Amino acid sequence: MVEGEIKLLGTWPSPFVIRVKMILEQKGLSYEYIEQDVFNNKSELLLKHNPIYKKVPVLIHGDRSICESLVILQYIDENWSKTGPPLLPPTPYERAIARFWAVYIDDKLQASLRGILMAATEVAMTEKIADTHAALETLEGAFKNYSAGKDFFGGDSIGYLDIILGSFTVWIRVLEKISGAKLLDEAKVPFLVQWEKRILTVDYVNKVLPSVERLEEYGRALRARA
Amino acid sequence: MVEGEIKLLGTWPSPFVIRVKMILEQKGLSYEYIEQDVFNNKSELLLKHNPIYKKVPVLIHGDRSICESLVILQYIDENWSKTGPPLLPPTPYERAIARFWAVYIDDKLQASLRGILMAATEVAMTEKIADTHAALETLEGAFKNYSAGKDFFGGDSIGYLDIILGSFTVWIRVLEKISGAKLLDEAKVPFLVQWEKRILTVDYVNKVLPSVERLEEYGRALRARA
Repeated sequence: MVEGEIKLLGTWPSPFVIRVKMILEQKGLSYEYIEQDVFNNKSELLLKHNPIYKKVPVLIHGDRSICESLVILQYIDENWSKTGPPLLPPTPYERAIARFWAVYIDDKLQASLRGILMAATEVAMTEKIADTHAALETLEGAFKNYSAGKDFFGGDSIGYLDIILGSFTVWIRVLEKISGAKLLDEAKVPFLVQWEKRILTVDYVNKVLPSVERLEEYGRALRARA
Repeated sequence: MVEGEIKLLGTWPSPFVIRVKMILEQKGLSYEYIEQDVFNNKSELLLKHNPIYKKVPVLIHGDRSICESLVILQYIDENWSKTGPPLLPPTPYERAIARFWAVYIDDKLQASLRGILMAATEVAMTEKIADTHAALETLEGAFKNYSAGKDFFGGDSIGYLDIILGSFTVWIRVLEKISGAKLLDEAKVPFLVQWEKRILTVDYVNKVLPSVERLEEYGRALRARA
């Protein structure tokens, strides 16, 4: 384990930042959070520590910087492996499955949610709602298998996929309001709806999630500007 | 370690398949390779084992299937951790750096190379050549640091990034012929040029790479069809 002060560069609405906050809280690590203005005024700190993508989140740990949220999650889990439950499951095959669905969430689900947020026409909106339903139903099937009757995808405690999908929960509820469509629909994805209820009872998850109201205001402002 | 027969579903020109062959050879594992026709006739085997993406590579190990090349590489490394040198470096920070650049190669470099292959106009071709130069120069700087004077990014033996970038080497040479531009240019990326020479002296790398001639013919046919 390497020691050193932890700083997190982020923006509050970003699910990619929210997930890093979740694991830092879960591991009980103290850190300084530094909000960034990535649209209008990228900070020297951001440009120095993520010169390649100039994006958040960036984890600064001592004199090292780590970028890309999935890379950061694995780094924190591996460096503080003795603190708290392990993020990734114990066997190579289970880890492969978790990594596969992590990429699916960040690829398919994220793109369809972003599509709803930025949809400029009715046709586009309808298409992106359908894509989101398809992605959530795929995840419902996969995760029902994966969790094998346990409370979380990580089993009895929150794991890699709980944190990754969990970082989108408030966005999903906000996009329901913006689109007028039910996305986390009890009739279609009952397992995910129950999972969402359970994860929202976890203190450190609630602590780092923005409110639906604040995020909705932000989402509507983004749409208006597009 | 889980035992079981290994099958690999792939297409011979795919860099994502080539890299899986490289690690299987490096670990000295026997496997059955089953060539797929992903354009015209997806096999039952492919649809069964990768119902989500219906893409190659797919590794079938006993009764399990693992999809997505980076996930497969980590699975093989972890399941056969006692066989051959480890693919990923020993410390959490070094692993984070390797994972970061792996995603950079598959995201930025791959997109710019594909852009050259499919460029329909002179303007698009010029732009994608510039993107490729930029990506390779970024990798040159990063990898010069990362390898710290050793022969490979993995140190004295081939590691995660060697295999991932190595899977693109023949494509880069083919795209030089198709575009007429020097991409792996001694004047711009001398370290990568020397690294390429070294990796091409490794028997199992050469064994799984297609010839420039065969891949050029394939690339030109793809372009003609687009």
